[in-house]
Amino acid sequence: MTARDYSLAELAEQLQLECVGDSSLRIVGLATLASAATGQLSFLANPRYQKELANTAASAVIVSPAMLPHCPVAALVSDNPYLSYAQATQLFKKQSEAVAGIADTAVVAASADIASSASIGANCVIGERVRIGEQVVIGPGSVIGDDVVIGPQGLLHANVTLYHGVSIGHSVILHSGVVIGADGFGFAPTQQGWQKIEQLGAVVIGDHVEIGANSCIDRGALNPTIIGNHVIIDNLVQCAHNVQIGDGTAIAGCTAIAGSTRIGSRCTIAGGVGIVGHISLADNVHITAHTLVTKSISQPGSYSSGTPMLETQQWRKAAARFAQLDAWIKKLSRFIKANN
Amino acid sequence: MTARDYSLAELAEQLQLECVGDSSLRIVGLATLASAATGQLSFLANPRYQKELANTAASAVIVSPAMLPHCPVAALVSDNPYLSYAQATQLFKKQSEAVAGIADTAVVAASADIASSASIGANCVIGERVRIGEQVVIGPGSVIGDDVVIGPQGLLHANVTLYHGVSIGHSVILHSGVVIGADGFGFAPTQQGWQKIEQLGAVVIGDHVEIGANSCIDRGALNPTIIGNHVIIDNLVQCAHNVQIGDGTAIAGCTAIAGSTRIGSRCTIAGGVGIVGHISLADNVHITAHTLVTKSISQPGSYSSGTPMLETQQWRKAAARFAQLDAWIKKLSRFIKANN
Amino acid sequence: MTARDYSLAELAEQLQLECVGDSSLRIVGLATLASAATGQLSFLANPRYQKELANTAASAVIVSPAMLPHCPVAALVSDNPYLSYAQATQLFKKQSEAVAGIADTAVVAASADIASSASIGANCVIGERVRIGEQVVIGPGSVIGDDVVIGPQGLLHANVTLYHGVSIGHSVILHSGVVIGADGFGFAPTQQGWQKIEQLGAVVIGDHVEIGANSCIDRGALNPTIIGNHVIIDNLVQCAHNVQIGDGTAIAGCTAIAGSTRIGSRCTIAGGVGIVGHISLADNVHITAHTLVTKSISQPGSYSSGTPMLETQQWRKAAARFAQLDAWIKKLSRFIKANN
Repeated sequence: MTARDYSLAELAEQLQLECVGDSSLRIVGLATLASAATGQLSFLANPRYQKELANTAASAVIVSPAMLPHCPVAALVSDNPYLSYAQATQLFKKQSEAVAGIADTAVVAASADIASSASIGANCVIGERVRIGEQVVIGPGSVIGDDVVIGPQGLLHANVTLYHGVSIGHSVILHSGVVIGADGFGFAPTQQGWQKIEQLGAVVIGDHVEIGANSCIDRGALNPTIIGNHVIIDNLVQCAHNVQIGDGTAIAGCTAIAGSTRIGSRCTIAGGVGIVGHISLADNVHITAHTLVTKSISQPGSYSSGTPMLETQQWRKAAARFAQLDAWIKKLSRFIKANN
Repeated sequence: MTARDYSLAELAEQLQLECVGDSSLRIVGLATLASAATGQLSFLANPRYQKELANTAASAVIVSPAMLPHCPVAALVSDNPYLSYAQATQLFKKQSEAVAGIADTAVVAASADIASSASIGANCVIGERVRIGEQVVIGPGSVIGDDVVIGPQGLLHANVTLYHGVSIGHSVILHSGVVIGADGFGFAPTQQGWQKIEQLGAVVIGDHVEIGANSCIDRGALNPTIIGNHVIIDNLVQCAHNVQIGDGTAIAGCTAIAGSTRIGSRCTIAGGVGIVGHISLADNVHITAHTLVTKSISQPGSYSSGTPMLETQQWRKAAARFAQLDAWIKKLSRFIKANN
Repeated sequence: MTARDYSLAELAEQLQLECVGDSSLRIVGLATLASAATGQLSFLANPRYQKELANTAASAVIVSPAMLPHCPVAALVSDNPYLSYAQATQLFKKQSEAVAGIADTAVVAASADIASSASIGANCVIGERVRIGEQVVIGPGSVIGDDVVIGPQGLLHANVTLYHGVSIGHSVILHSGVVIGADGFGFAPTQQGWQKIEQLGAVVIGDHVEIGANSCIDRGALNPTIIGNHVIIDNLVQCAHNVQIGDGTAIAGCTAIAGSTRIGSRCTIAGGVGIVGHISLADNVHITAHTLVTKSISQPGSYSSGTPMLETQQWRKAAARFAQLDAWIKKLSRFIKANN
């Protein structure tokens, strides 16, 4: 667990930004404008926080050229302060340094091929013929099924589960509780009950993917489930069998995507969304929170369903009227016709 | 990890289907019509894929008698091609062969009674007085609380957690991250905060049940929570304390059922559904995706709530009108009365 | 695994209730009025169950003074029978007695400071500089990251994961599969893809908190995510980075709260609710099930969104009309204007 400090000049160099003010200042961490203290670097990315700039106790602030005149302390000048802040977080992250090697308590199959720079945590279980790339870190308690491939620089936090045959690209982050490759929900009805359809497909995860805690990506029925490159998925998200997600798409928490649906590239799916099975979404589609997507979307744009939040008393009346809506509109239609 | 191959004649015999064409063909796997290659068996269950039949590269296809004349390759003829495909998946599944016995790294209470043909994976923890039936397989990292009973042929994948006193029937599949028997959400309000109500009931799971990754079935407050036979539950589903689910019901991902609600038999609950507490649903009820079920349903049939997906711009206007709906309909009603 | 029995007199003393009837009766457990047998104590809290009082086979019942005349068996008289029942469940809970000490198979960093009365289960992994208070119980397979602090009397069930730097108050219960301190969902868009924003904040959990199975509380971006005292959270709930939840608030299953949102004290959030980011909810707000909260709420009260459940056929008509709502109301408005 280490976090180092930097001079402002060093930060300017690392972030490739212009430094205005005392470049010898020591910076020990990052903070918001309102909560920053001496020795901390802050940033102003959203104009609504401009009023906090004047009073900040930060030692330095990442600002746009336009905001520079308003900055009362030292500054790092960026055309994109939010991105510069994102890059600065890399410099200040505190994380346990994983030690290369395999923990004594890990259980590793003899046929597994683990790069010497990889770190396999306590109580991990690694199956037959697994291949783990350079600098991969696998947290304690994770279970990696047979024939899994994990590309270089991957980070699996504690208690992740990968079923057999899952393939993970490079620089992928999987948070705790993630389950990849569980059986898709496939059954054929019979008189005696549900006949399980064994899920024979794999899961293929691209490069630079991050998947949040307790999210699930099911294996395909026959063909694989596919998550593209640079896809980011939040916590408690469900991707069913044979879903395909295009490059750069972002999916917020508690969203569920049903089987065989294809999501385009650079889509942004808000939280709590449901997307039914066997449909396609174009590239650059945005879905607002809690929407149910019931059909394919062929055009980029923003899509929604639901009703606005109201006080429950008012909502009850509107909801009751919703149930009568067809009857009222028919009545209106007849009345207009009769009186025109 | 093994998957064997079969002659078409062997498959016909195993699946009890008529073989038309070269019965000596070697079949090494299953694939969809569009992606199949030589040596693979495919199937045509949904008429919308009929056009793919003519061009398939599969060596053989499971078809209905009506489709047989259109099949350009060898065929297995089935009155229910989808069910025959489901049965065929059993023959081609690749799964690690679990070895009977208890892994060295498993921690097993002395009073546990584990069948000799059962397989207990690495780093499992098995509590006092647990009884585990013949041919049960428990994946690595799973934790089985005191007094749990697991019937024969059960398959618990890695990192499953069963709290004390949970009872599981035979031939049950639990996917990774499943938690069964956690405390129901029961508290009594007091001036000082919430007084926890200890959850003293059990969970009873029937036979031939499958529960998807990261789903939760809470223990009962006093009486048990009960999941019937042949119930299938997808990923990230929540069943609260004292829920009862009838035989053969299917529940899709991210659905939540609140406390003490009873679901009938052979219901199909789509994904993202919410069902409030203390109500009953009849047998053969279907609930569409993202519906909130707010009252008991006494008749079989299909039920829904929500609004259709629209472009966000159009949706905003409709949503704003929803809030005014009661006022507008009252205005309409008065106007019609005044002008009739 | 023990559960003792009590004389009715002992129970009256422990629960500080008046005993009416044979105080020497032996009580071995708790049950509902309808399912109770001889030797069991029941309770009548909800008037709708009054009819079950007359026929109960319970040996004794906790009743209000008003119900006492209708009680056919011995009674414990309480002004708040539900609370008395909640307290009685504490006396009858069956739970494995955790043995103080560290299991042989646990992996504990040398720098961890673990109270001698704490119990660390099999296969737990405890990181550097972790501090664990008196009488804490940590279930098997749990992973505790570096620099975590867990206050006295905490109960972590099996397979819980705490990331580095998480702080937990006293008397906190975390159920299996809970993940606290995973990275918040923070990324800056770039031409090349998403630039990860390292999440440098912590998570601070108050006292007397309970969090249900497979729920997630993300770490803050810079400032901490904060869960107040006496907060109760059900299963599969998502709290994003920098969420703040006030004291005594209750959150039901499958609810998701987006980043930086502040929830007041003593709120009750039903199941399947979504709350967007960067808003505030006042104290004593109630949100009904499946509501999407899209803006701040400054007044106590109950809030809702959604539409009522209908038969799907009727719902389809109403839903189609919803899409046309703005056009119809404009037409109505014009018609009224033209004809007035």
